[in-house]
Amino acid sequence: MKKFLNTPETYVADSLAGLAAAHLTLTVVRGDTGDPGEGAPFVRRTAPTRPGKVALVSGGGSGHEPLHGGFVGVGMLDAACPGEVFTSPVPGQLLAATRAVDAGAGVVLVVKNYTGDVLNFQMGAELAAEEAGIAVETVLVDDDVAVQDSTWTAGRRGTGATVFVEKIAGALAERGAELAAVADMGRRVNAYARSFAVALTACTTPANGRPGFLLPDDEMEVGVGIHGEPGRRRAKLATAAEVAELALDAILAEPVFAQTGGGGADAADVIVMVNGLGATPLAELYILFHEVSRLLAGRGVTIVRSLVGNYVTSLDMAGASFTLCRVDDEMLELWDAPVNTPALRWGM
Amino acid sequence: MKKFLNTPETYVADSLAGLAAAHLTLTVVRGDTGDPGEGAPFVRRTAPTRPGKVALVSGGGSGHEPLHGGFVGVGMLDAACPGEVFTSPVPGQLLAATRAVDAGAGVVLVVKNYTGDVLNFQMGAELAAEEAGIAVETVLVDDDVAVQDSTWTAGRRGTGATVFVEKIAGALAERGAELAAVADMGRRVNAYARSFAVALTACTTPANGRPGFLLPDDEMEVGVGIHGEPGRRRAKLATAAEVAELALDAILAEPVFAQTGGGGADAADVIVMVNGLGATPLAELYILFHEVSRLLAGRGVTIVRSLVGNYVTSLDMAGASFTLCRVDDEMLELWDAPVNTPALRWGM
Repeated sequence: MKKFLNTPETYVADSLAGLAAAHLTLTVVRGDTGDPGEGAPFVRRTAPTRPGKVALVSGGGSGHEPLHGGFVGVGMLDAACPGEVFTSPVPGQLLAATRAVDAGAGVVLVVKNYTGDVLNFQMGAELAAEEAGIAVETVLVDDDVAVQDSTWTAGRRGTGATVFVEKIAGALAERGAELAAVADMGRRVNAYARSFAVALTACTTPANGRPGFLLPDDEMEVGVGIHGEPGRRRAKLATAAEVAELALDAILAEPVFAQTGGGGADAADVIVMVNGLGATPLAELYILFHEVSRLLAGRGVTIVRSLVGNYVTSLDMAGASFTLCRVDDEMLELWDAPVNTPALRWGM
Repeated sequence: MKKFLNTPETYVADSLAGLAAAHLTLTVVRGDTGDPGEGAPFVRRTAPTRPGKVALVSGGGSGHEPLHGGFVGVGMLDAACPGEVFTSPVPGQLLAATRAVDAGAGVVLVVKNYTGDVLNFQMGAELAAEEAGIAVETVLVDDDVAVQDSTWTAGRRGTGATVFVEKIAGALAERGAELAAVADMGRRVNAYARSFAVALTACTTPANGRPGFLLPDDEMEVGVGIHGEPGRRRAKLATAAEVAELALDAILAEPVFAQTGGGGADAADVIVMVNGLGATPLAELYILFHEVSRLLAGRGVTIVRSLVGNYVTSLDMAGASFTLCRVDDEMLELWDAPVNTPALRWGM
């Protein structure tokens, strides 16, 4: 295993310490609620939540950096609860984070659809409501169209759309919207966003020290999950144009992208994210984005904004994911609103 | 070779097309000067240079993305000239870019110290002066303390400090400073910045399809260059704390970091970059940054700003580089000035 670490056991804690050291706007807090998960750390904005602002809390297994800690800051999350690598955060940790950032207007929990996450966030939400009297709404993210159920999930997996949910709902919260409205916006974004990923190599967790699966030198995993879960099929390596096309075919087959539209958003206006899974050079993500932009132009879909880079990773996996999010004027305006986090920053 | 590409021959061109498609503030221009390098593309700001503003042009071999195209934009570069992967840009291309962005106040060329780059930038500068009558100043970046000469270089290699030179001198140009002042500031930043890198794996160029060198599973290359050039030695894999310490030991041994100071900058105030070489997870860069912050605190050095992420890469190399840049108040203010490029963005 070739990684920069001190011990596999301290991988997450050391990384969080670095995150906090690099960004004074963030603080790493150790939970101490007496509940399960006591002592498990979470990341919060250093500044207290503005009274009356709805707070957003997300989290999940580590190994997907910058998700979620890198999205804590003005305009996105108020706190993030990292689990160990590929391991859910625990209820006590979620309770502590929710308590820490609630400013009286309630908390929206953003949860990626993995069985462990869903269960633990539900318990955390119940604790927050019952023990702390905090109004909590949950937004479930399940955007990955590759498989219906998987080794880690009942239903679709939650992946790249999380960035869009956190950015757009976070901007709405920053504007002073109420709890139900912020949660509804988060659900709307999830309903309008779809993702698909392709892996060239497996990732290696610090605890295992070996790749999670083996891919022959001339094959790729089509529809891979962000923990290395199997996708739809193995296939021979393909060109960037072919990879982009198979991902877009899968995404655009979804009813939400039917050109007839029908919702508030125009199916022809999308924000596109071409996301690296950890070990893929930025140059190759731009090669893929070029193919995406070419293909979408040919199908009458307009890219109104884009992200190209590493946003939702899978440790050191070589691979890329594609997310398309339909947007209406309101969603686009919220996307463009100022944000100041380690991983997304503009307008301030 | 597992890469997202169409053909090795179109790797750079396709990636540039994606860069331009993703960022409307940038345009890729094909040179057509009739000089050697005719047709070689360069990246420029879409908006013309403000009359009287000194322009900054950099460039070098591709494969180090986001360097340099990702640093084109308000507050940094006016244009970037990419060569093929690990290959210098050509004089005609540099002439075309210099011509395109000169607004009457002259052009600063930022050159990393590699033999081919130095030669071609020199020829480009001569062409710009003689054929186009443009006032040109050159800033040479040679910050890598690992080796004095190397397979690619006479003198020290130019690596991470390039980001600091382009940001700080770029901000000064944006403020309306004159050509000589902008170039002097670039040289000052280079004199105050030092770097050191460690590789866990070699990179694979699209043209070769095989790793540039072989590292045993339990070894790392200490002092590696950004093209995979040999460093000081091979060593057994070490902990993150040990890696950070050997890099800082090499950097802090430089006279510029002697605590007595003497220049305008306080040796105890630094901007730190912990930079991924392409395939290293962000979580591990934060682990390294934590060790750097701990070690520097113990040596009385204050980190006043930081960058943690992929800024100067080496294709798909797993590894990290460390850059420390001493700053005085003026340099820090210029660092903090607004910037709007694909890879660095704040204040706007």
